[in-house]
Amino acid sequence: MSYSFPVVPRYLEIDQQGVVFYGHYLTWFDEAFTGFLAHVGVPYPDLIASGVDVQVVHAELDYAESVRWGDEVHVRVTSERVGSTSLTTAFAVHRTPDAPEPAVAGRLVHVCVAPADDWRKCPVPDALRAALGA
Amino acid sequence: MSYSFPVVPRYLEIDQQGVVFYGHYLTWFDEAFTGFLAHVGVPYPDLIASGVDVQVVHAELDYAESVRWGDEVHVRVTSERVGSTSLTTAFAVHRTPDAPEPAVAGRLVHVCVAPADDWRKCPVPDALRAALGA
Amino acid sequence: MSYSFPVVPRYLEIDQQGVVFYGHYLTWFDEAFTGFLAHVGVPYPDLIASGVDVQVVHAELDYAESVRWGDEVHVRVTSERVGSTSLTTAFAVHRTPDAPEPAVAGRLVHVCVAPADDWRKCPVPDALRAALGA
Amino acid sequence: MSYSFPVVPRYLEIDQQGVVFYGHYLTWFDEAFTGFLAHVGVPYPDLIASGVDVQVVHAELDYAESVRWGDEVHVRVTSERVGSTSLTTAFAVHRTPDAPEPAVAGRLVHVCVAPADDWRKCPVPDALRAALGA
Repeated sequence: MSYSFPVVPRYLEIDQQGVVFYGHYLTWFDEAFTGFLAHVGVPYPDLIASGVDVQVVHAELDYAESVRWGDEVHVRVTSERVGSTSLTTAFAVHRTPDAPEPAVAGRLVHVCVAPADDWRKCPVPDALRAALGA
Repeated sequence: MSYSFPVVPRYLEIDQQGVVFYGHYLTWFDEAFTGFLAHVGVPYPDLIASGVDVQVVHAELDYAESVRWGDEVHVRVTSERVGSTSLTTAFAVHRTPDAPEPAVAGRLVHVCVAPADDWRKCPVPDALRAALGA
Repeated sequence: MSYSFPVVPRYLEIDQQGVVFYGHYLTWFDEAFTGFLAHVGVPYPDLIASGVDVQVVHAELDYAESVRWGDEVHVRVTSERVGSTSLTTAFAVHRTPDAPEPAVAGRLVHVCVAPADDWRKCPVPDALRAALGA
Repeated sequence: MSYSFPVVPRYLEIDQQGVVFYGHYLTWFDEAFTGFLAHVGVPYPDLIASGVDVQVVHAELDYAESVRWGDEVHVRVTSERVGSTSLTTAFAVHRTPDAPEPAVAGRLVHVCVAPADDWRKCPVPDALRAALGA
């Protein structure tokens, strides 16, 4: 299950070196993940409404190339693994829709939690598991 | 009632022109306002605990000079006016503690609201009014 | 000359009160202004390439209503005044494309500057003046 | 070589769940790294002036606990490894100065680059290597 999320780099995301500040990619991953959930048919608001929220427990990023203002960025999102309570999702930031190699590649691990049960870990809902093709 | 709040410009706040992006000053005003409330003896958490929150209804900024990475910024905070339900507060961003003129000057208008009463406007609490010397 | 710029509020722009933090609207204005320049036929990169940059010297915002995650935000951009060296532009943030009243309304004043002439003020380029219908 | 950098969580860094948004920790790491360089006697502006800049090529974060508004955050910085052209630095975010376990732990890998040589990789300067106790 893969998905591509377009991003227009914002002027304030560009730093003094003329490139996107390395911390902002997590913001893009976050927005891309939300788009991905909607794309697979389990929008985040529906997930919340069903009593399940997600929290990030791990993030990693590898920076191969700089992204600049004006780049037509696409973030490709791929579900890598669905565990009993966790989701591992890969993100690849491409500077143009057809760039062969990502400028930045990363990974988020989310755990499912139940806000009503004091935010304790809970199983990945079946609907989400199915939607992710696991 | 005046107060000075130190700010270390963050690297990611500097844009491609080598200066602080003009939107970030509102973040500094916000942090300086929180420091100001604590300074006058009505910390924001106490205000909330007393059933009163504040919301910004107006902001304005005049930019005379650029602020750069490495500047020893101080934001001077002055209460300008305490109305029946609103507070008008002035902010002056100085690039060094003793710079005679501010690089950026602005103003926020907050209204007091009652979260328990559907976030309706409410009078400025007496303790806050007294603390601001009104 | 008017223009509408769509914005998807980002999750990290929502604060503890569940609404967009009031400082982030300037980021939206900035992106909307860039879109507006492209829309009228004078893209920002072309402006820079012609030897003219713009700097914000004044900003003001009035907040009537909160914007929330999931809102289909549109920022309407209108050129209000073109002076000899300055541009005054109005911004109206609507929570839905057809909301009659803006949630947030504001204004930016830019001055034209010449980077090659030590960032001194310079006249608004004729092409930009014509494009703005002044 | 270890160092502790204080952070006051900013109101706008707190998200709708009432906790610091997970992307902002990289901003804190960045500021803490700058403080660390100054602490060991090789301030970032001096590094730049010597013809060497640094770029982040890898970042990773593990989130054990949420950080909230009002927490007296300290980021402990430790140099883990100094390679021929790279620096590996560990960051541990503590919610109070004496919290035994970090709420968030992470790592940045920087490479040294030479802006004058088309931003190519270059050796870690001797002064920096010595300052990091390598």
